[in-house]
Amino acid sequence: MHIANFRIHPIAIADPPLRSSYGLHARYALRTVIELESDDGIVGISETYGGDAQIKQLEALRSQIIGANPYRLTGFLSPMVEGQGRGDARSQTYLVPGENPLDATTRTYAAIEVASLDLIGKSVGQPVCDLIGGRVRDEVPFSAYPFYKHAGGGGEGDDAREDEYGEALTPEALVRQAQQMVAKYGFTSIKFKAGVLEPDLEIETIKQLYRVLGPNVPLRIDPNSAWTVETSVRVGRALAEELGRGGYLEDPTAGQENMAEVRRRLLAQGINTPLASNVAVTSFADIPRSVQLDAVQIILCDVHYWGGMRQVQHLACLAKTFGIGLSMHSNTHLGVSLMAMAHVAAATPHLTYACDTHYPWQSAQDEIVLGGRVPIVNGCVRIPDKPGLGVELDYDQLARGRERYQKCAYRKRDDEAEMRKYVDPNWKRVLPRW
Amino acid sequence: MHIANFRIHPIAIADPPLRSSYGLHARYALRTVIELESDDGIVGISETYGGDAQIKQLEALRSQIIGANPYRLTGFLSPMVEGQGRGDARSQTYLVPGENPLDATTRTYAAIEVASLDLIGKSVGQPVCDLIGGRVRDEVPFSAYPFYKHAGGGGEGDDAREDEYGEALTPEALVRQAQQMVAKYGFTSIKFKAGVLEPDLEIETIKQLYRVLGPNVPLRIDPNSAWTVETSVRVGRALAEELGRGGYLEDPTAGQENMAEVRRRLLAQGINTPLASNVAVTSFADIPRSVQLDAVQIILCDVHYWGGMRQVQHLACLAKTFGIGLSMHSNTHLGVSLMAMAHVAAATPHLTYACDTHYPWQSAQDEIVLGGRVPIVNGCVRIPDKPGLGVELDYDQLARGRERYQKCAYRKRDDEAEMRKYVDPNWKRVLPRW
Repeated sequence: MHIANFRIHPIAIADPPLRSSYGLHARYALRTVIELESDDGIVGISETYGGDAQIKQLEALRSQIIGANPYRLTGFLSPMVEGQGRGDARSQTYLVPGENPLDATTRTYAAIEVASLDLIGKSVGQPVCDLIGGRVRDEVPFSAYPFYKHAGGGGEGDDAREDEYGEALTPEALVRQAQQMVAKYGFTSIKFKAGVLEPDLEIETIKQLYRVLGPNVPLRIDPNSAWTVETSVRVGRALAEELGRGGYLEDPTAGQENMAEVRRRLLAQGINTPLASNVAVTSFADIPRSVQLDAVQIILCDVHYWGGMRQVQHLACLAKTFGIGLSMHSNTHLGVSLMAMAHVAAATPHLTYACDTHYPWQSAQDEIVLGGRVPIVNGCVRIPDKPGLGVELDYDQLARGRERYQKCAYRKRDDEAEMRKYVDPNWKRVLPRW
Repeated sequence: MHIANFRIHPIAIADPPLRSSYGLHARYALRTVIELESDDGIVGISETYGGDAQIKQLEALRSQIIGANPYRLTGFLSPMVEGQGRGDARSQTYLVPGENPLDATTRTYAAIEVASLDLIGKSVGQPVCDLIGGRVRDEVPFSAYPFYKHAGGGGEGDDAREDEYGEALTPEALVRQAQQMVAKYGFTSIKFKAGVLEPDLEIETIKQLYRVLGPNVPLRIDPNSAWTVETSVRVGRALAEELGRGGYLEDPTAGQENMAEVRRRLLAQGINTPLASNVAVTSFADIPRSVQLDAVQIILCDVHYWGGMRQVQHLACLAKTFGIGLSMHSNTHLGVSLMAMAHVAAATPHLTYACDTHYPWQSAQDEIVLGGRVPIVNGCVRIPDKPGLGVELDYDQLARGRERYQKCAYRKRDDEAEMRKYVDPNWKRVLPRW
């Protein structure tokens, strides 16, 4: 078996105007779908970050991919991920995930690895999770992911989406949004995207979530580095009870030194809420110093930018060895990525938290998976009894996604520009803001 | 596909009277070969430590193995390796590898994992290295492994083997032995088992090896913790030049604190010879403290006792992340283990040293691989273009191995008892001896 065709599909998907400390989500999010087709006509797929830069990085591998044995391809290409153990760490403090040039190679490798595994799985009739060590769970828990947001469901003009969740720029509205998501998908933990309103309002939001959902729903708050050490400690103290029940404080402040300082000060006050990160630690090179400083007690893995499924499994083993928890990062994505996330989570014993997912923010109108959206039931994605990732492409939907990509103005993600365009012409990302 | 048969073969193989700080190798070494046979008649094999305790541990898994999908089996059984990230570290200072009850579960899991991968590889027509991420090398370098030894080729009575290398209890004889091994197999690095003669004689041995083989053949010395910190530093200083060219000082002394002290004192004298270990660090649980102390700069992985191929790959990633080198440990073994070692090495980018192997000490009379001994050419094992591990069992030879097991008196490895029996009735393992 060898790879006879390599197809790259740039697509755009409607995305609601969600807010974070990076700015505002654009009306369309960009994704890339790839297909590796074998000489015997089996197709392996994966989904990754979008935009022209990502397309170019994938395209550059074409000559290495065509003709390759899919079992060996990840070996050939391994220098793309092996570099990441040494050299400079590559924080994403100032860059949205997917736009960091320092992880371009691991992102690109991951897309190829996942599609190769899907192809292999489909050729041997086995689910991907069982190719990479074997599942340790059949159902993978995900978190609800409420955001402050403006009115609107994403898309533009005739292509605008229904605003399923409505505007949410107050604690009360955010709580309603979270409840709506929980009711629809059965999530049993909440990741709340903060760093948007005054810290006291975000504290109030968590307190209301806690009152409404009760102490058995773990709560996490993620202001994407928007706060000073002082503010981080103040929030950590104010929410000691609410975040202390299986939740965490994610990237309250920028930089490993500052994270470590927050941790020290909280511990000194008897507050053991762990700090999580997908900013201070985004590569293996970031880990030694983080361990030394105790900057991060939970690392958010990501099959996309950490370099694929096997690198996530390596990370999990490393995290377990050093007593570090493991959660999973998400970016706006469709069902192919959701399944890749679910499969690696299923085959990673030391995944100690429910995974993040933006999936509730996307719409059936944009889904590229045959048969429509992947079900999330009781907050979980079930590993289906199908080979590979367990999903196939709906080529009509894919064509619509490609068409939207061609029509829309976006070629990379820039939440700051979007914020200036729609909310405040003078807006700048300032870190720390509070 | 499911596993329909699970066969466990205890075998004994002739082993020459090799010396180490543990004592004396017995006339027979014990190994276990397992077969996992699928319902469609494909057989996956692996080889591991021997003796009745190992057999019993494998036998205890029978009900979980029979009927299992080989792709999922390692997932079910993963608690056997997942435990090792936490809890007590498990030094093998006082126990020969294979006789440490604390790694019984990881050893047993590894045997099942390797046989499952061989079965899967044979069923899909792919080499094992390409199932676990893909090869990064087609040829895996091994080291010569000279030992001080008494006269004799191993085996007993009518079953005695030719003494290919002769007695070697002086520096000169050891150098001849190493040269003989290099001439036969083309090894380009040397691992010298020390901890047997006075340290000055062992220093002299390395100096002679260096003079005879030249500065381009990396030299390692491994006294298995026989020395004090003082002696370790003295040897490290005396051999700064000889070990400093890509070689290392392996387990000169017992305990991470002592290893760290040796490292500090050598560095203070400007000697950067790295310390390697398969005693102070034998599990993930040992690593955090070792990193903190800088006790070990090179870890010896082992597909057998570290918990299989994927655990070795996790270890390699961890080692790379922390700037730690990776080499590979060996114990007396036949061709099935050699191929498992070669396949995991082929698919582990961060394997920074040639692997150890005892293979030259074994004889064609004992080989259980169909077609006879696996070739080592230019010091390397080539990954063959065959599915799975690339080897099949010779059932006649296996039956002879089983027969020898039944006949011989050994049921576990005890080098100290052997030493008392053949060399010195009052011998005791004393650490540190010098």
